[in-house]
Amino acid sequence: MASSTIASTSLGKVTIIGSGLIGRSWSALFARRGYDVCLYDTVSSQLEVARSVLDTLLVQWGDEDWLKEGENAQTVLARIRYSDSLAESLNKAVYVQECVPENVQLKESVFKQIDELVGDDTILASSTSCIIPSKFTKGLKHESMCIVAHPVNPPYYCTLVEVVPSPWTTPETVKKTIAIQKEIGQSPILVRREVNGFVLNRIQYAILMECWRLVEEGVCSPEDADIALTEGIGMRYAFMGNFETMQLNANGAVDYCQKYGDNIKKICLEQQELGARDLSGPTLDKVSQYLNSKIPIDKLEERRAWRDDWLKAIAKEKIKRKDMALQNL
Amino acid sequence: MASSTIASTSLGKVTIIGSGLIGRSWSALFARRGYDVCLYDTVSSQLEVARSVLDTLLVQWGDEDWLKEGENAQTVLARIRYSDSLAESLNKAVYVQECVPENVQLKESVFKQIDELVGDDTILASSTSCIIPSKFTKGLKHESMCIVAHPVNPPYYCTLVEVVPSPWTTPETVKKTIAIQKEIGQSPILVRREVNGFVLNRIQYAILMECWRLVEEGVCSPEDADIALTEGIGMRYAFMGNFETMQLNANGAVDYCQKYGDNIKKICLEQQELGARDLSGPTLDKVSQYLNSKIPIDKLEERRAWRDDWLKAIAKEKIKRKDMALQNL
Repeated sequence: MASSTIASTSLGKVTIIGSGLIGRSWSALFARRGYDVCLYDTVSSQLEVARSVLDTLLVQWGDEDWLKEGENAQTVLARIRYSDSLAESLNKAVYVQECVPENVQLKESVFKQIDELVGDDTILASSTSCIIPSKFTKGLKHESMCIVAHPVNPPYYCTLVEVVPSPWTTPETVKKTIAIQKEIGQSPILVRREVNGFVLNRIQYAILMECWRLVEEGVCSPEDADIALTEGIGMRYAFMGNFETMQLNANGAVDYCQKYGDNIKKICLEQQELGARDLSGPTLDKVSQYLNSKIPIDKLEERRAWRDDWLKAIAKEKIKRKDMALQNL
Repeated sequence: MASSTIASTSLGKVTIIGSGLIGRSWSALFARRGYDVCLYDTVSSQLEVARSVLDTLLVQWGDEDWLKEGENAQTVLARIRYSDSLAESLNKAVYVQECVPENVQLKESVFKQIDELVGDDTILASSTSCIIPSKFTKGLKHESMCIVAHPVNPPYYCTLVEVVPSPWTTPETVKKTIAIQKEIGQSPILVRREVNGFVLNRIQYAILMECWRLVEEGVCSPEDADIALTEGIGMRYAFMGNFETMQLNANGAVDYCQKYGDNIKKICLEQQELGARDLSGPTLDKVSQYLNSKIPIDKLEERRAWRDDWLKAIAKEKIKRKDMALQNL
């Protein structure tokens, strides 16, 4: 391993800052592709936990053909080192992925430390889901190399990565970040402006708020709002977005908008009149009563495993249909 | 076959009014369960088309284990009759499913004709996706038996049915409609109030409008908005709704709302300020340019077949995981 310069096809050293769930996932993804990974954490006992979780995860990936052809868990695990020294971790890194808790002061402090230790060509990416990058990168020596690369959990089945530059991030940094994310098998999208919620959560919260209003207004039960997704329109969102739906549900999108545009606007105006709601009060009682009876708090872990297994099945179906190309990594 | 009374476990005669895509799907679903189906259309040449399409569809279902155990295409097809006489079609029907084009005057006229010909115990259901039932059932002799049962296309993979009573529909009619829909393998939800868009389209349009605003505001491209669904949150909506997502993404929904509620409301207020948009102008140009290059108008049919094949794969995965129970029909 060498190279402090970077191109989308040459590999190098990647540093992951923080060894929680997301940090471990990034480590596995970069190592699978062939990067040398250094996973950093301040707490060395946490690194031992991470090592043990990654050992298990990579063996599982090996069993499930979730690795590059001709490789096995050991090949990949051999590329991951663990360190509690930030300077050592960052030495010669071509790409850094920060995964510390979602706190703007903490991010600011971590980026300041990283800024002092990296070379001028290192990309500094944050995994934050909700903090715009200009809030914690302004004034750094390497501010033009700073960017957000927000994954979805678990990133190896849900491959979306939201790439969010700040106003001072260079186009070259944006381009390289997108190239690296594609290279490791992810699906980067570009968030061109720093908006709260980026793209994913803006869409997710629009859905959540509308489901909330439907329950609050007594139109349907929380259970039925969930069924409307799982047995109705949600069936298609794993492989087809809303714009493509417009194209297929009429003779193309222009025809769709001419036929249904006025009615859609009218319905959305009604939603708007109801407004954004506080997520509390009697509607929360109704929602949580239903959810706690369906999935009691002490069964959450079990249900999360069920969810991840479903996501895996859909990801495997995508590979089968060549909508995802794991074996071309 | 007999019985002019109905119970959720006894079968009888079902009349389907209109032999288009939806009418044919209903015919197949009711016949598969064991109902005697009469498919009515005013145009007898259309009935010949329907017969041929159903012959093919049922053979396909036979090949794909999409029938009850021990049955085959012929058993099911033998239960479907075709008629261009409304009186004959409706004679002794226990349940009528209307599937004529989405036009309120037409629905009104069809329901008036049906009203004159049916017995007092017959449920009169409309497949409408967008017209509330009180607009075309008021004042009918059997108005208390009228209801909407809105399916998703194709109904045999996407099993959601929106059951929408009018203010004069009896609770017994609602109960029986839900029971019959469950009996034939569908997933009915109850829309308790007559709202425009029911539940499915209210949610769908909330998503569509937010994707539209993201493109219009220059936050992301139409393609990236679609990828945010297909590779991000959309991966889970085929098996998990938004309320269940709240429950799993924190220590239950109450914890989720306490942690994230304020931020979600803030983001939704920003969406609201942008408002409901006209689906036209430069944003439509941008959207349709992307869509026409990805899926040209002359490839729409091909892509629809691709979509249905994907929906089938997800439906089969549901059966495998017992999230759907076709073989218990």
